[in-house]
Amino acid sequence: MQSFTPPRRVLMGPGPSDVSPRVLAALARPTIGHLDPAFQGLMEDIKAALQRLMNAPDHACIPLPAPGTAGMEAAIMNLLEPGDRAVIAVNGAFGGRMADMAGRAGAVVETVEDAWGQPVDPAKVEAALAKGPAKVLAFVHAETSTGARSDAAALCGLARKYGALSIVDCVTSLGGVPVDAAAWDADVIYSGTQKCLSAPPGLSPIALSKRAQAAIAGRKEKVRNWLCDFNLLMSYWGGEGGRTYHHTAPINALYGLHESLVVLFEEGQQAAFVRHARVHESLAAGLEAAGLEMLVAPAHRLPQLNTVKVPEGIDEAAVRAHVLARWDLEIGAGLGPLKGQVWRIGLMGASASPWHVRLCLTALADALTAQGRKVDAPAMLAAAEAKLAG
Amino acid sequence: MQSFTPPRRVLMGPGPSDVSPRVLAALARPTIGHLDPAFQGLMEDIKAALQRLMNAPDHACIPLPAPGTAGMEAAIMNLLEPGDRAVIAVNGAFGGRMADMAGRAGAVVETVEDAWGQPVDPAKVEAALAKGPAKVLAFVHAETSTGARSDAAALCGLARKYGALSIVDCVTSLGGVPVDAAAWDADVIYSGTQKCLSAPPGLSPIALSKRAQAAIAGRKEKVRNWLCDFNLLMSYWGGEGGRTYHHTAPINALYGLHESLVVLFEEGQQAAFVRHARVHESLAAGLEAAGLEMLVAPAHRLPQLNTVKVPEGIDEAAVRAHVLARWDLEIGAGLGPLKGQVWRIGLMGASASPWHVRLCLTALADALTAQGRKVDAPAMLAAAEAKLAG
Repeated sequence: MQSFTPPRRVLMGPGPSDVSPRVLAALARPTIGHLDPAFQGLMEDIKAALQRLMNAPDHACIPLPAPGTAGMEAAIMNLLEPGDRAVIAVNGAFGGRMADMAGRAGAVVETVEDAWGQPVDPAKVEAALAKGPAKVLAFVHAETSTGARSDAAALCGLARKYGALSIVDCVTSLGGVPVDAAAWDADVIYSGTQKCLSAPPGLSPIALSKRAQAAIAGRKEKVRNWLCDFNLLMSYWGGEGGRTYHHTAPINALYGLHESLVVLFEEGQQAAFVRHARVHESLAAGLEAAGLEMLVAPAHRLPQLNTVKVPEGIDEAAVRAHVLARWDLEIGAGLGPLKGQVWRIGLMGASASPWHVRLCLTALADALTAQGRKVDAPAMLAAAEAKLAG
Repeated sequence: MQSFTPPRRVLMGPGPSDVSPRVLAALARPTIGHLDPAFQGLMEDIKAALQRLMNAPDHACIPLPAPGTAGMEAAIMNLLEPGDRAVIAVNGAFGGRMADMAGRAGAVVETVEDAWGQPVDPAKVEAALAKGPAKVLAFVHAETSTGARSDAAALCGLARKYGALSIVDCVTSLGGVPVDAAAWDADVIYSGTQKCLSAPPGLSPIALSKRAQAAIAGRKEKVRNWLCDFNLLMSYWGGEGGRTYHHTAPINALYGLHESLVVLFEEGQQAAFVRHARVHESLAAGLEAAGLEMLVAPAHRLPQLNTVKVPEGIDEAAVRAHVLARWDLEIGAGLGPLKGQVWRIGLMGASASPWHVRLCLTALADALTAQGRKVDAPAMLAAAEAKLAG
């Protein structure tokens, strides 16, 4: 068994994204104890930073000690008890996952389906909520499987109107487009670290409103998932009565998250949103110059996740293998019904730069040419540069 | 918000232990994608290394993407269904935690109690198993809350005799004393990375026997904890049908675990056990030279977790605060009924060295002296050195 040296990679798939040297360096700082006073200071810093990041001054915000899926599971398992009705919008892989988890929580699940690549339709959601009381409305703000953005403000508003608690999956949105717990009046928001925050995967920031906390405090049964039991988690992360041991926090991963938040606030969130939007426009223009089409309509596109249709006659997997082999570039494949139909190109966090756009267009042009398709690479780059300058 | 620089610390609490510079450096290697062919190679390496580490050639071994408690929850939640009977031995905090989780799984739980500081009594366990069929016998091999080691071979043998599946908590034992899945014929073993493996906290290695896997495959209901659903986890970690997306693996944390295993195998497990035993004997001799007493009888002591009784008239918390402030040394407090009664001194992994013994004895002598107790520090060190030389 030998030490592992990772190959050079440029990460433009659906996550993880490129991690900056500053965050990598933070990971390697010496481990201290999770009950150390200095570590408690770090925890307080992170809680405050997450509140700021999600504009959630009145929410309880902590990072869960497991990947983004833990946020989903914590949200579902804490809010739902056996027999509760849950309305869950499904317009991609992650909405479907929520519905599966809600079933494991013992809930009565009603799914509201939209086509993959479409946003969640608020009218359908309202119809489902109007049919009868629901404890929870859950939906995905930024569907990582399709690149479609849904209207979180409208959907959270419907939850409030019908007395349901809202659960909003912001795994791919946080840091790339606005996530605003206060403006949306959202109950639970969760995310991951490996998308637009550009930290390694492994943690899941979560925010819970006072309504959500009251619902959890009033449960009849214990939460089925001990590790994600929010009452226990909040005792560990320091409620009013001090800290109670629950798990051992992943110290070094939290160093990395902390540094990624320092980096983000140095740039400014608004500036980061503008950067994501600009590189997205640039990439889309370059792709369109090669005759490639995006899956999602412009009004609903996520800048950080670009879903590109595979042209007729092109071997989808061979293109990914080509850009990986020749350009050390990772782009993503389609999931579920989109398997073989699309590529998913991430422009997230540190991977949302003009350099990444140029490399990706160049690599794709090379891969398509290798399959005999006529591609004008200089025209693609020119179209991309025009948007960067504009 | 400013970058975080951890203070210097020497970690001799119940975990995390000191992380070696090699492991810290591994954490900071560039992140690659979790579907990257190179990362799949790393996953295969880690699976094989965990089989070797636990002597579990016929078990399925993977690291769960969350701290050690996730291993406990995965074991309980995968093996138990509502109505199943579970016999759970409780001789410290972690046995009690298992019983709580089994209740959340819907099991009918029968606890077998032993005093904190005592090993699990096989006779009591056999009596509970003989009363009627149990699906599971769960116990803690190395109680982190007390420092007592139980007889895993005997207890797993009882589980086999009565047709129960065994769950063995090896969070604190793995890497410090022998953990032998094959010899014990154990069904589920789980551990953590932040004890004798000396990687940061955040991952939980787990091993499942073929019997355990068959039991999971034959469940009537889905596992309640999606994130720890072993069927889904094994699809992600590469069963016979290739890899299916489940979560995004904590890439950099796995770099760290991998390097910690490389380091351990370079030394040799047997050599590491000898080292842990020797520094433990040395520490115990030094403590006894100062008139301090160990909680656990010699036959049942874990070398890596030394539970020391707080002498009459000494302020327990003030001693910990003193050694932290003056010596940058972390030692642990007692939990539950042992709160205020004991210190817990870890000699785990990279913290199991003669240097750590000397520093700890020196710091404790200083702290006790500061409280007016007469302590002969040179005699403590001499007693410790005699054991190191012997």
